[in-house]
Amino acid sequence: MEYREIIDIFEGHDKFLILTHKSPDGDTLGTGFGLCWYLRDMGKMANVINSDGFPDRYSFMYEGYEPQDFEPEYIVSVDIADPNLMGSRLAEYQQQGAVDLCIDHHFSNKQFAKLSHVEGNASAAALILYKIIKEWGRPMSSLTAKCLYTGIATDTGCFKYENTSPDAHIAAAELMAYDIDYANVNRKMFDVRSRSRIEIEQTVTGSMKYYCGGRCAMIVLTTELIERTGADPAEFDGLASIPLSVEGVIIGITVKQRHEKVFKISVRTTEEADASAFCAGFGGGGHKRAAGCEIQGSLEEVTELLLKAAEESLGAIRDE
Amino acid sequence: MEYREIIDIFEGHDKFLILTHKSPDGDTLGTGFGLCWYLRDMGKMANVINSDGFPDRYSFMYEGYEPQDFEPEYIVSVDIADPNLMGSRLAEYQQQGAVDLCIDHHFSNKQFAKLSHVEGNASAAALILYKIIKEWGRPMSSLTAKCLYTGIATDTGCFKYENTSPDAHIAAAELMAYDIDYANVNRKMFDVRSRSRIEIEQTVTGSMKYYCGGRCAMIVLTTELIERTGADPAEFDGLASIPLSVEGVIIGITVKQRHEKVFKISVRTTEEADASAFCAGFGGGGHKRAAGCEIQGSLEEVTELLLKAAEESLGAIRDE
Repeated sequence: MEYREIIDIFEGHDKFLILTHKSPDGDTLGTGFGLCWYLRDMGKMANVINSDGFPDRYSFMYEGYEPQDFEPEYIVSVDIADPNLMGSRLAEYQQQGAVDLCIDHHFSNKQFAKLSHVEGNASAAALILYKIIKEWGRPMSSLTAKCLYTGIATDTGCFKYENTSPDAHIAAAELMAYDIDYANVNRKMFDVRSRSRIEIEQTVTGSMKYYCGGRCAMIVLTTELIERTGADPAEFDGLASIPLSVEGVIIGITVKQRHEKVFKISVRTTEEADASAFCAGFGGGGHKRAAGCEIQGSLEEVTELLLKAAEESLGAIRDE
Repeated sequence: MEYREIIDIFEGHDKFLILTHKSPDGDTLGTGFGLCWYLRDMGKMANVINSDGFPDRYSFMYEGYEPQDFEPEYIVSVDIADPNLMGSRLAEYQQQGAVDLCIDHHFSNKQFAKLSHVEGNASAAALILYKIIKEWGRPMSSLTAKCLYTGIATDTGCFKYENTSPDAHIAAAELMAYDIDYANVNRKMFDVRSRSRIEIEQTVTGSMKYYCGGRCAMIVLTTELIERTGADPAEFDGLASIPLSVEGVIIGITVKQRHEKVFKISVRTTEEADASAFCAGFGGGGHKRAAGCEIQGSLEEVTELLLKAAEESLGAIRDE
């Protein structure tokens, strides 16, 4: 779709419901609230909803937000590739065509909405919305700018990852003009961790094992370990980058127990190995640097299979 | 100085010696090698020197670098605010006027060179050099671009800190056009840690203590602890951000033993407290979010003084 068509749709309606994906992140909320505030600022009605509520750590984007009371006239989903990602409390919007417009940046988008605008190469959904707003040209508040910056920054790992495009940097430069206290946003998004998260990282890092002369590192998250910490299992997300953060490691493997004999495997590699090919050997897939698969068996069997594959991939002898 | 004057100087000479600061970081080396490669590419002779050598982790900037054999005709220092920061092996260049041109971004620059170009507001020395090169207009290699990107990215914490200016983002966007594999650069600069560094962070984080209802956190690095790890004391640098990375912490304090009864204190705060005022109370100083001081006394006396100051600053009762 042309940005102009999207702008005309927004101009032509007055009461918007904005859907964000479950386990919300900075991009879905940044795009959702960015759009909500922008529409409200021009006198329209708009609400944002999420199946899991809005986590405290993102409160700077929804400070002062109160749901408005109205019957939605137009339904927009942001950063949602698949209706299943809406979550149970948004079940009514999951059927084909229940959403009027989908704005997303995942190539895998399921085209579930009446209209879909998908830019698979965009660093973040918030970057797409920023470009739309830029063409739109109505005044943007500092709060809207902060939401869009947050979406772009979080999905690119603060401009660190491969998906950071030149226009993500350009957008950041332009959004900074809106006095958005980006350093504080970035501190909250990238530096601050809960005490329980710190303890989890301590435990996981402390139990990390090295193989293949230090070129493979593995962490294992058993159900028992997760339960023992007493922490919310969600706090165990995003640990898969830890093994590859060790100097010399080429293949970083994270093994997470799903059921007694079912393990979810996340593989991260440097440019010297292919995570996607590694996981394809177990019926999984993904990208060259980050991929995943599921393996059934006892923990011993699963780790043995993984280390064999790592050895083959590295063309090396494992040393434990 | 106008960029044009600096360009004319470079155009008018042929044999350059480029000085970088001791304990080199990504900015001094990125600026130094960026300039070296750019000058060599136009047929001039140039060498980079550092009092401590070039650390392995920056090898992607000096791959294939061999010192050239020549008598320097023009001496340039990059990212050096004070001659003392040159280090002992560069002692001969520390006297006033020994350096021909100083390119730097520290307000505190001591103006020790014959000519000084200081932009105190610039995010990085590499950003200044990038702007000079842009005005210069001669072709820039991918390697030069990668050096400049590295300087800008490292000094801004990957575009995370307050010193990230819009033009730092713009420069990054433009440098990306040179096929610089920025994701790999960023992984090496921001994610990869040595095993001994990981162990140090584990030890330090594990021994962190909380006070004032969790609003103050403190880590203590005694000589005994540093020696016990068997690690290079340099690996204990840059730990001061750890206490403030804990959710709810407003004042993060790092106490590092210098001598038996002398402690170096680093204080980091959120926007709710003033690190500079905190440290001024002990004769130190710095910025609002990051400051330092030195306190003499036993460890018990020093921590007691610090906690009193934290209590006052937070207007709270300490709870141990």
